Amino acid sequence: MTDSQIDVVVSEVGLRDGLQSIKRVMPTEAKIRWVTALAEAGLREIEVGSFVPPKLLPQLGDTEEIVRAAIKIPGITVLALAPNLKGAERAVAAGVHKVTMPVSASREHSMANLRKTPEEAVEEIRKVRQLCDSQAADSRPGLEVGISMAFGCSLQGLVPEDWVMKLAIMLVEAGAESVGLSDTAGYANPAQVKRMFAQLQRELGDKAGAAHFHNTRGQGLANVVAALDVGVKTFDASQGGLGGCPYAPGASGNVVTEDLVFLLESMGLRTGINIERLIAARAFITQGLPGEQIYGNVPDAGLPKGFVYAAEAHAS
Amino acid sequence: MTDSQIDVVVSEVGLRDGLQSIKRVMPTEAKIRWVTALAEAGLREIEVGSFVPPKLLPQLGDTEEIVRAAIKIPGITVLALAPNLKGAERAVAAGVHKVTMPVSASREHSMANLRKTPEEAVEEIRKVRQLCDSQAADSRPGLEVGISMAFGCSLQGLVPEDWVMKLAIMLVEAGAESVGLSDTAGYANPAQVKRMFAQLQRELGDKAGAAHFHNTRGQGLANVVAALDVGVKTFDASQGGLGGCPYAPGASGNVVTEDLVFLLESMGLRTGINIERLIAARAFITQGLPGEQIYGNVPDAGLPKGFVYAAEAHAS
Repeated sequence: MTDSQIDVVVSEVGLRDGLQSIKRVMPTEAKIRWVTALAEAGLREIEVGSFVPPKLLPQLGDTEEIVRAAIKIPGITVLALAPNLKGAERAVAAGVHKVTMPVSASREHSMANLRKTPEEAVEEIRKVRQLCDSQAADSRPGLEVGISMAFGCSLQGLVPEDWVMKLAIMLVEAGAESVGLSDTAGYANPAQVKRMFAQLQRELGDKAGAAHFHNTRGQGLANVVAALDVGVKTFDASQGGLGGCPYAPGASGNVVTEDLVFLLESMGLRTGINIERLIAARAFITQGLPGEQIYGNVPDAGLPKGFVYAAEAHAS
Repeated sequence: MTDSQIDVVVSEVGLRDGLQSIKRVMPTEAKIRWVTALAEAGLREIEVGSFVPPKLLPQLGDTEEIVRAAIKIPGITVLALAPNLKGAERAVAAGVHKVTMPVSASREHSMANLRKTPEEAVEEIRKVRQLCDSQAADSRPGLEVGISMAFGCSLQGLVPEDWVMKLAIMLVEAGAESVGLSDTAGYANPAQVKRMFAQLQRELGDKAGAAHFHNTRGQGLANVVAALDVGVKTFDASQGGLGGCPYAPGASGNVVTEDLVFLLESMGLRTGINIERLIAARAFITQGLPGEQIYGNVPDAGLPKGFVYAAEAHAS
């Protein structure tokens, strides 16, 4: 399946957003096997780690090695998160295809997470833009930003929508190639998602980026339906719903990749992903982190009788 | 809050759809305490049991007693399921406000479940219509039908949409006051939900009934968003996501009432339900069925900081 036959891009963030919230360390070899299995299942975009200081998140301390292995896998776009210029320099040196940077719309969260105001974080984007531009044209990485806490914040509560839009415009002006909205704390509702992504597209045009939803309150796929309705084409998700708080059962992390792909394919939207192979890739999580709880309904229930992939439905 | 201030009706089916799939018996007193707590949380419509032969489902053998207790609780509409005329006679004798009857769109499921063809089930509705009409006007019960397997069937696979619509029309002609669509086996997707409920409304007008979704593949709330989009106003849900297969962890039953009410209220749709009190009512499940696993993300995560109920948002 060529990229022109993909209706919606599912961007896997389990190796970054998922693993960052688990204290145990998945061995490097296991991570590489997992990325390989995801690529073989048809995932086109994989965020493989984070260039935060290893003393803060030792479980992601091998991100450079993972990037170097992942960029050898054909057919995938390899992303890594960078919290700042220094992280971006390491990401670029490792050879990522795209640097993804979080900028929080919540002043309180921004200070707690990045020790920067949102305005200072925008300045950091400007510097990373220069870094990317200084690379040779044939290996110049992309630069995308996700606005954290875009729908509400567990520290400050309300995050004004106008401010989020203003911040998105500032980020594009600073050089982000796409700006998405992240529901970091599971605050979003479908009405708000529709309103905000529609406005983001009006403001940014084709630079309006991905939807990143957490399933903290069970609303992940409900919010996906709302975002699809206004034309969002890229969704972050985490295999097995990894992430979230390990001390709150059910308060799982990101949208579960397996359930999201099923949603899209059954709606007739082509993802290029084979659900059976995707489910098989869960084995690599269990091998790398024995006993870790993973989520997802489709893996338990299986595909419905007579299930037809979107590509087959299109062809018939 | 008066009924005119309710935007969406959440119809609780945990005592019927939930308990019918659990082999253990919840004591009658516990059920009555649970119904009472649900009513106090603001639920307006509660399906309290099923008039199937007690030897088939002993755990619902006390439905008559539950109905007699529930109809004394002010402000709620008390429903009970009846599989046939005989069950409907018992329901009416007990004093239900509404009889709800399942008619399966899947020929195979209909034979397995009711030992009737769908056409024979329609004839049964006609008889129950006569039964209801023969009651005194001031105590005449309502009669609603849910079409099971309306979105696909775990026995026969595909269920043609045209046939579901034809069946819905036959059911109204036979005397059903409303006809809803049930995703009994968790087969529905949002595109299909939108298409089928829109057509149901075109065919039946204000006799188009409730959406009943199972969360088997994690798509319950995603399907709710799609149904809301085409104007569906009544949704079945089960507290704690009771139901489903107890041998498939995560393959929970109906849409979780707590997560559904949160979805609706955060979208600005008034349900009349207090989420904290609703969550408190979970204690009665645990008291009545110690150790039973219950689901739901909102009960684990709590309400977001700064959460505002739809009614307050309307008032401000």
